[in-house]
Amino acid sequence: MLLGKLLLRNKNPSHTTTFTRRQITTMSLSKDHTKLLIPGPITLSTEVIAALGQQSVSHTCPSFTTSFKDTLKMLRQVYVAHEARGMPLVISGSGTLGFDLVGSNLINPAKDQILLLSTGFFSDEFHEAISTYYVDNSNQVTRLSAANAGDSIPLNKIESELQNKKYNLIVMTQVDTSTGVLLDIEKIAALVHKVSPDTLIAVDTVCSLGCENIQFDKWGLDICISASQKAIGAPPGLSLGMVSDRAILKSETDITSRNGSYYTSFKKWLPILEAFESGKPAYFATPPVQLIDSLRVALEQILQFSYKGQTGIEARVNKHKDTSDNFKTCITDKLGQQLVSKTLDNSAHGLTAIYVTNPPSVISYMQQHGYTITGGIHKDIKSKYVRVGHMGVSACDDSLNDISGCLSTLSDALQQQQQQQQQ
Amino acid sequence: MLLGKLLLRNKNPSHTTTFTRRQITTMSLSKDHTKLLIPGPITLSTEVIAALGQQSVSHTCPSFTTSFKDTLKMLRQVYVAHEARGMPLVISGSGTLGFDLVGSNLINPAKDQILLLSTGFFSDEFHEAISTYYVDNSNQVTRLSAANAGDSIPLNKIESELQNKKYNLIVMTQVDTSTGVLLDIEKIAALVHKVSPDTLIAVDTVCSLGCENIQFDKWGLDICISASQKAIGAPPGLSLGMVSDRAILKSETDITSRNGSYYTSFKKWLPILEAFESGKPAYFATPPVQLIDSLRVALEQILQFSYKGQTGIEARVNKHKDTSDNFKTCITDKLGQQLVSKTLDNSAHGLTAIYVTNPPSVISYMQQHGYTITGGIHKDIKSKYVRVGHMGVSACDDSLNDISGCLSTLSDALQQQQQQQQQ
Repeated sequence: MLLGKLLLRNKNPSHTTTFTRRQITTMSLSKDHTKLLIPGPITLSTEVIAALGQQSVSHTCPSFTTSFKDTLKMLRQVYVAHEARGMPLVISGSGTLGFDLVGSNLINPAKDQILLLSTGFFSDEFHEAISTYYVDNSNQVTRLSAANAGDSIPLNKIESELQNKKYNLIVMTQVDTSTGVLLDIEKIAALVHKVSPDTLIAVDTVCSLGCENIQFDKWGLDICISASQKAIGAPPGLSLGMVSDRAILKSETDITSRNGSYYTSFKKWLPILEAFESGKPAYFATPPVQLIDSLRVALEQILQFSYKGQTGIEARVNKHKDTSDNFKTCITDKLGQQLVSKTLDNSAHGLTAIYVTNPPSVISYMQQHGYTITGGIHKDIKSKYVRVGHMGVSACDDSLNDISGCLSTLSDALQQQQQQQQQ
Repeated sequence: MLLGKLLLRNKNPSHTTTFTRRQITTMSLSKDHTKLLIPGPITLSTEVIAALGQQSVSHTCPSFTTSFKDTLKMLRQVYVAHEARGMPLVISGSGTLGFDLVGSNLINPAKDQILLLSTGFFSDEFHEAISTYYVDNSNQVTRLSAANAGDSIPLNKIESELQNKKYNLIVMTQVDTSTGVLLDIEKIAALVHKVSPDTLIAVDTVCSLGCENIQFDKWGLDICISASQKAIGAPPGLSLGMVSDRAILKSETDITSRNGSYYTSFKKWLPILEAFESGKPAYFATPPVQLIDSLRVALEQILQFSYKGQTGIEARVNKHKDTSDNFKTCITDKLGQQLVSKTLDNSAHGLTAIYVTNPPSVISYMQQHGYTITGGIHKDIKSKYVRVGHMGVSACDDSLNDISGCLSTLSDALQQQQQQQQQ
């Protein structure tokens, strides 16, 4: 040891190497700790936080390789996808990056026709994102929008469109986080397979993976994109997804022209993800080792979750449904408020969008009483509603009293508002 | 509280909601803990790990907004950039994403001519990445490569090229992590400003930010891209950078055609980063709140670092230089090994690439004795050398004995190898 120590010792001992630790606050975020009930980021379990707060390791070491392998295999299970077909996606980035995964790998800019279903702000983002990948905006995308904020899109309208033109891709948002509208992906996918079997199916599952029914294989989906910080219950920073063999084939055979987006290229990522899933390290871009290990723990907790005699993702989805239905029924029947998404069967199970008279005052009251909720973002109604997230541990662990406490505090907030209006 | 509790209680008490915690290992990565001396991810300080392992908060709450503001302001300081001109970049993603930041915002695919300096694997990646953004690969990029692995690129060759053709952009890698070659960015930038003042200057500072001299403003750089997991000393998962007003103007006025890469669009990001830097939250893509707060702590530690009477980034750079020069001198003069980068003034200060007879056996010996180093990745010589990273706390806190211990263990490894060869 002497050799190294000798050479590396400071030559001038009066100039010492020091870290000045004053002023550095290592837990600055905790200053704002209330019950976090926005539609993502959501409250993490203690175990997920523990997995996050670890020393860095090499991105090719055995422990990380195993962690990544397990993460990918479990992500398949959460998508109810075949254990060997297609490929799960775990890429450093936010959920927004997923739009580019679809745009850069599944759209031939020279010819593809796209049908996009819009149910709110995030469908519009998806539209804007993919529009950077085709040549002629007006001709290549057909947009089918919900009649009003909070509405779904009738199946017969989708059917007419599919009969009207040959589409290469249909793009939709299972839950639009801006409105809390849930699309019936199972029925839409069945319709697409019946009417236009060659059309690839892309689904934004950012606010649905982990809390809504998704049967990737059974429904014949081609690409789902998602993010780590919603119902999956991991920290923000990972773009997630699942892609079918049919979509991979399209990306390999039909996407040949330049299209930018080196970072989202399947050609680059699929061999890497395949290697890690088979237990071998590979390199394209340095994976965020701590984020991926915390995602692993979050996925394990989903797959080990028990509820009403079921275990795993089915139990988790059912628990979210019960929590959500109870919450929404209470909001409408007991508190007398209207939901943006109008009916229960049209509604997401990970969040509730609620019309209130004065959103800022409700949000502020909730914050003062320990609950972080958020405002509206749909362009037509943004000043008229609030959004409450109920995902992950907040929705699944009743002993935390997150949702019950939120409900009673929301009841107080609305009561106070009513009293102020009467004065 | 009663109302909510009542409604959310399980209807059937025999079906309880439980998290099965058996089998979940929350600290799986720690199984592989040795001294991590690869060129990223690097060993984190205790304070950075503490900032990482925090509960999620809203991405628009005051504590996160303040943390992000401080992070952006400090990133300017680490780049020695003007406090009001240009914009620092902190985006969820890996360092590789930075190539798309350059490609999608600063290359007009219809006409731009690009000069690319290649000093190894990562310069080649940069080349491949931006090649997806221009129309005619062969005509639009001129590549000037180092004669051999480990060589730099002579200034007179760069000068000839700049005189030969009008380039819109020059692209270079300050430290190519594959070879440990350091380019003299100050001199190259001065040459560009003299010979071809309209040429924008893009620099990959992934393996140099935090450990090499970078004077963003003084040298007149236009875009630097980097990553969180190297000399900055934060966990992997953040794409970092700094962009000049001149480059922003180019992106606003000259990049009008479709080019994919919605996620890396300056048009989307700059208003968001500007808002956060002025203390106001804004939304484009959910920021990774824990990663950004851990980056904040890492940047604070850099700016508070003292060495030889200096404080801040200058002290940090000087300490890395001394650690590196000592390490390299010891490798060549005491251990008799040859460096890939040949001479000290041609060499990076955050890593050392060392020719050895049998890289796998050296790496394995080091691993068995508690040090993680890594192999070569330059296509011409990959089976002939190893790479040792010395960045962040490992290079700056001598009391850890990371570098001295590595040196003496490396000495043992080479001695053992020599003995085996003699037998």
